[in-house]
Amino acid sequence: MPWTIGLDLASAGEPLFLRIVRAITNDIRRGRLRAGTALPGTRTLARMLAVNRNTVVAAFDELTAEGWLTTTRASATRVAANIPEPTALADGVWNQRPAPIASPRPRALRTQPPPGVISLSRGEPDVSLLPAEQLARAYRRALKFGPSSTLSYGDPRGVLALREAIAELVSATRGINATGAQVMVTRGSQMAFALLAEISAPGARIAVEALGYPPAWQALQRLGAEVVPVSVDEDGIRVEELIELHERLPLSAAYVTPHRQYPTTVTLSAGRRLRLLDFASRHGIVLIEDDYDHEFAFSGRPTLPLASMDRVGCVVYVGTLSKVFAPGPRIGFIVTTEERIESLAQRRAILDACGDPAVETAMAELFTSGELRRHINRVRSIYARRREVALESLQRYLADTIEYRVPSGGTALWLHARDGIDVDAWAAAAEKRGVTFHTGRWYSLVDRSLPNIRLNFAAVGEEQIVKAVEVMRRSLTGLRRT
Amino acid sequence: MPWTIGLDLASAGEPLFLRIVRAITNDIRRGRLRAGTALPGTRTLARMLAVNRNTVVAAFDELTAEGWLTTTRASATRVAANIPEPTALADGVWNQRPAPIASPRPRALRTQPPPGVISLSRGEPDVSLLPAEQLARAYRRALKFGPSSTLSYGDPRGVLALREAIAELVSATRGINATGAQVMVTRGSQMAFALLAEISAPGARIAVEALGYPPAWQALQRLGAEVVPVSVDEDGIRVEELIELHERLPLSAAYVTPHRQYPTTVTLSAGRRLRLLDFASRHGIVLIEDDYDHEFAFSGRPTLPLASMDRVGCVVYVGTLSKVFAPGPRIGFIVTTEERIESLAQRRAILDACGDPAVETAMAELFTSGELRRHINRVRSIYARRREVALESLQRYLADTIEYRVPSGGTALWLHARDGIDVDAWAAAAEKRGVTFHTGRWYSLVDRSLPNIRLNFAAVGEEQIVKAVEVMRRSLTGLRRT
Repeated sequence: MPWTIGLDLASAGEPLFLRIVRAITNDIRRGRLRAGTALPGTRTLARMLAVNRNTVVAAFDELTAEGWLTTTRASATRVAANIPEPTALADGVWNQRPAPIASPRPRALRTQPPPGVISLSRGEPDVSLLPAEQLARAYRRALKFGPSSTLSYGDPRGVLALREAIAELVSATRGINATGAQVMVTRGSQMAFALLAEISAPGARIAVEALGYPPAWQALQRLGAEVVPVSVDEDGIRVEELIELHERLPLSAAYVTPHRQYPTTVTLSAGRRLRLLDFASRHGIVLIEDDYDHEFAFSGRPTLPLASMDRVGCVVYVGTLSKVFAPGPRIGFIVTTEERIESLAQRRAILDACGDPAVETAMAELFTSGELRRHINRVRSIYARRREVALESLQRYLADTIEYRVPSGGTALWLHARDGIDVDAWAAAAEKRGVTFHTGRWYSLVDRSLPNIRLNFAAVGEEQIVKAVEVMRRSLTGLRRT
Repeated sequence: MPWTIGLDLASAGEPLFLRIVRAITNDIRRGRLRAGTALPGTRTLARMLAVNRNTVVAAFDELTAEGWLTTTRASATRVAANIPEPTALADGVWNQRPAPIASPRPRALRTQPPPGVISLSRGEPDVSLLPAEQLARAYRRALKFGPSSTLSYGDPRGVLALREAIAELVSATRGINATGAQVMVTRGSQMAFALLAEISAPGARIAVEALGYPPAWQALQRLGAEVVPVSVDEDGIRVEELIELHERLPLSAAYVTPHRQYPTTVTLSAGRRLRLLDFASRHGIVLIEDDYDHEFAFSGRPTLPLASMDRVGCVVYVGTLSKVFAPGPRIGFIVTTEERIESLAQRRAILDACGDPAVETAMAELFTSGELRRHINRVRSIYARRREVALESLQRYLADTIEYRVPSGGTALWLHARDGIDVDAWAAAAEKRGVTFHTGRWYSLVDRSLPNIRLNFAAVGEEQIVKAVEVMRRSLTGLRRT
């Protein structure tokens, strides 16, 4: 029997292409579409569904970007070969021992770089590009015309207008069906992690990516939870290793960055996504999904988050405006079940009562007026250009020294140093010349040297990028090889 | 040998009258001035010190307000009779058993009252009186002319300009010698308490006033600390009971509201202040001093905080702008040793990274431009008038039902219901008629009914106050006596 697509009318609020994406991924997950199966052409499918062909093309692009489908020139689009069979759960697991468990070391607090120093270490946007005047005006309006509550205590879950604007954003562009009631505004993603630690059971064990985001680990650990590393390769976190780990040391949660693994910039493959979500659903493991820079896709569409496929409420989706807008207003958010939002809000009320209702109201206005969307579109092209400059500079100055894969988006490059170069000594030498960057050690849960460098380019002007890479080249002189 | 005053030149940065206050309290504490000793007249003392007589009068007013001195008409000013002798530490302790230990029950989150309801339960200022336009302008200037850091991550201790402005405020008007380095900006006093819980040792035991501020208890308790009640009478927390408690159950800290006990509005007597500070200094007990509405003195000067007499760094002084300005911007602060500020900042960086640098910069401008001071002076007279109206209304409608002592300041009255009136039933009856207030039960660590009502008048207009008290009167009809 040939495959026919069934459109899920239940999610009628979503854009049409997303409904097609969902219908196809559901069929893959249920086993109706198997690995390697050829799909009808876009023209045929568009006719079958009575939709515009471009809509089907958009859906196929999305599915290809996420790794569900593969297309080769002059051949049909097929379901990717590395999608696990629905019975894969019974398969053997990798016999890989995780690295020893260690606490993240305290790291220096975030500070502004001294004047004259070019910082490639800060994962911040270029705040000089911000519509600061619009933000100031929106704040003034919030104080002047808003309810008196903008100056009083607010809802610990955040101002409703902002929660609804966030729900709309994630529904429209990230495939997450959520209402304002399922959204909580936090002070950056940092407070989201800190609050999740508060509602986790005593003695919780949380799997994390062995290379990852130390401030999140510190927040998750602060009330005694144990964090356990799982290794990361070019397809993202090794889900089979996580599953094997759970058998020995039962996990309560896993903290992951599927969209663009932090810091390595790789995307979690479709097969692993499916496997992770399926495994977590069956074993009651909470997936803390940190989708920190969803908006910055330069090629293709952004991959949809795990939360968009979550049918049992096992995903806690964490987002932030710190990367796409600015860290200063401290706006992060959690999207999850209403029940969990309620528990988080109770804890949040004890921590700092509530956010600043005037700032939250102002940010809601920037959402609904389209200002935020316009800003993101504007900086996306600026950052894309800066990335081109960074890639050109690396090619020009460091082609013999480093290698890298160009990620589909984001505001950083993850470099691998060749030939046993001591990257920590390199960083120290560059710092003396006024250029700072973090090496693999900074991102490693276990304190060890790794031959990697993360190069953050968003907040650095084009000329400065060229200069910084040139300084990196000069700093290599006299460096010992290990 | 007649008493001669020695001016402490070490604190030369302080206003002159405060230096006189400090010299005299030091002499009382050292035993050079004993209970009942007559002081020279203000003219004589002014000549001795070569200062303006008004300066001495201001110092005497302060000392009298704090309870160190007593003055009767047509007689000399004397050291108060209830000041303990320097040897008092060896005295017997009260043989009073504290109430059983209990966890504070969860209380409803702060919310705005529904339209048409007059809330006497919210301890908030009248935000409609705020210079909102000035705040909006200061915010705009912070974004526009401030360093780019107003939109980036900031110092977890707060923006330096605000820390310095707060240091200046507490030095100039509260006798606390502090620099910006000893100040940390927090998100309201709520975060101050939450952070103090983070740096307290595991299994900490904290004495609290048996009638007090439940959100602070919840914050202090949240990481497992035990809170133990100590009773409160018309002179504030019973310090002898606290000392006796410590002998049986060693205390790590005590959370107190000496300036205006919350919720009973009484001021901690000078003798008890001295005893508490002395006891805490000797036993390494941290005193968490919550000075939530220092600015609202309607008669006499505000009493100086414990922190102003702290020589060993045992006091952690917590303040907030939520009462004198507005809760919305969430500006609270901690003044304590630089070392403690450092530990608190490390924890704060994990909780939510930092405050909003733009809002903090804007608030610093309101301090330094004098706007905040002007605002406080303006609302002080408005609140004083509202208090008059509240007292008149109580006299008119409820004189036969309640009794109360008029506090020297603040934005609330603490009422005692006569004749076994069931205040909880009264509150329920009034709520049906659109007037809400909290009864003693809400403020009690142990869940029990108390014949008290706290009447917050700051955010209620004069006509509304009259109406609310009249509704309280009507709500008494048919109420059973217990």
